[in-house]
Amino acid sequence: MAMATFGQKRATVLRNRFLVIGSCKSVLTSTTKTMKAIIQRVTKASVTVGEEQISSIGRGLCVLLGISVEDTQKDVDYMVRKILNLRLFEDENGRAWSKSVMDREFEILCVSQFTLQCILKGNKPDFHSAMPAELAQPFYNNILENMRSTYKPELIKDGKFGAYMQVHIQNDGPVTIELTSPTGPTDPKQLSKQEKQQQRKEKTRSKGPSELGREKGALRSRQDPNASSGAEGDVSSEREP
Amino acid sequence: MAMATFGQKRATVLRNRFLVIGSCKSVLTSTTKTMKAIIQRVTKASVTVGEEQISSIGRGLCVLLGISVEDTQKDVDYMVRKILNLRLFEDENGRAWSKSVMDREFEILCVSQFTLQCILKGNKPDFHSAMPAELAQPFYNNILENMRSTYKPELIKDGKFGAYMQVHIQNDGPVTIELTSPTGPTDPKQLSKQEKQQQRKEKTRSKGPSELGREKGALRSRQDPNASSGAEGDVSSEREP
Repeated sequence: MAMATFGQKRATVLRNRFLVIGSCKSVLTSTTKTMKAIIQRVTKASVTVGEEQISSIGRGLCVLLGISVEDTQKDVDYMVRKILNLRLFEDENGRAWSKSVMDREFEILCVSQFTLQCILKGNKPDFHSAMPAELAQPFYNNILENMRSTYKPELIKDGKFGAYMQVHIQNDGPVTIELTSPTGPTDPKQLSKQEKQQQRKEKTRSKGPSELGREKGALRSRQDPNASSGAEGDVSSEREP
Repeated sequence: MAMATFGQKRATVLRNRFLVIGSCKSVLTSTTKTMKAIIQRVTKASVTVGEEQISSIGRGLCVLLGISVEDTQKDVDYMVRKILNLRLFEDENGRAWSKSVMDREFEILCVSQFTLQCILKGNKPDFHSAMPAELAQPFYNNILENMRSTYKPELIKDGKFGAYMQVHIQNDGPVTIELTSPTGPTDPKQLSKQEKQQQRKEKTRSKGPSELGREKGALRSRQDPNASSGAEGDVSSEREP
C-alpha cells in the first residue's frame, strides 16, 4: 500500500511551520493535511443504498472519516485509539462524559467521508487533499480492521465505500466531536510520552473525588445535554425497535 | 451582549503565532478558538424533544454550530455567508458542487452544538472553550436572525437551545463539511480583499468550459457520491413523506 512516508509528512509539517509565520490561516484551513473524523453520539444509525438497508447500529457512535493524502499508520493508530476511548457517555449513575463506547459495549457505524478533506476555493469545495479512492479504500479497510481487532468485530459496522448512500443518524444530545490526527511533534517517541503524561495526569485526577465533584458541577452548570435529560424525558427507549 | 472585542481576538492570534513556532499542534488543537460548524447535506432532518417533534426540514443542510468564547460578529458574518453560499448541491443537469442551498431554495436546520468546542484532556472532553450558555444563547439567536434576513426566514429552522434533543439527520451522499471561521489575517479589509480575489478567480474559471470539463472529470474519477447516483438509484423521492 502506497502511503506518505514519515519523512514526507515531517517535511510538510516543517513547511507549515514556516508558512505559519506569514499567515496562520493557511495552516489552519489549507496547508495542514490530517485525518479527520466527525463523531456523533447516536441512539441509532443506519446506512441505505438505494432501497436496501446495508448496515445499522443501536446506541453508540456514528463516525464519518476523512482520510488525507498524507496520512500514515501513525494517524490510524491515534484515531482508532481516540474513537474507542473518548468518554462521550454517562456512567450507570448518570454522570456525563465518563464512559467510552468500549466501556458501555456500544456499537460503531463507520463511514468513509472524503468531503471532510475539503478546501474552499471561494464557495466551491476542492477535494485534492483527500487520499485518492484507489489508495483510500485499502487504507480505510485497514482502519476498520484495527478498530475491530482492538474492540469487538461484531460491534463495528460499515457503509459501502464509494457508493452513494443515505446515512441515517439519530444524534443523541446532540453530541458531536471533531477529531483531527496530530500534526506534530512528529517524533513518535515524544508524542507517546506526551500522551502518556496526559493520561497519567487524568488517571490521578479521576481518583480525587473532590476534584471530580468540582468538574461535574462546572459541566452541569453549562448546557450539558445530560443535565437536562431528566427534565426532558429519557429517550433511551427510542433505540428499541 | 458581551463579546470578545476585536483587540482581544487579535492578541490571541498574535500569541498563537508565537506559540506555533514551538509546537504546531498546540495551535491546531488547543489554543485557537474559532466558530465551528459541521454541515451535513440532508435529504431530510428533524429535531425531537422527548416525544415531540419540534422542527423538520426536507432537502437542504443540517448545521451543527459550535460557538467559542472568542467569537465576534465578524465570525458570524463569515459563517452565515459560507453556509448560505457553499456549493454542495448539483445543478439541473446533475453537475456536482455547483449550486448552494440558496440557489436551490432548500431548507436549513440549525442546531447549537457546544461540544464542537471540545479540547481533549486525554480521553476526557473539556468544554471551557465554548461560549458560556448565558452568552451563547443571544449570540446564537443573532446568527439565526442573520441567516433569516439574508435568505428566507421560513426556510431556516431551529432546535431548542440547551435542551436534550434527538437530531434525526438523513445525510445525503454522505456529504459533510467542517467549517471554521478564519483566525487571521485579522485586518477585515485585507480578509475581504483576499476573499474577493478568490471569488473573482473562481468566476473567471467557471466561464472557461474546457477548465470546467477537466474539473468535472477529476471529480467524477474520484469517489464523487453524485457520480454513482444514477447507478445506485435516485433517492431524491425519499424526501417526500
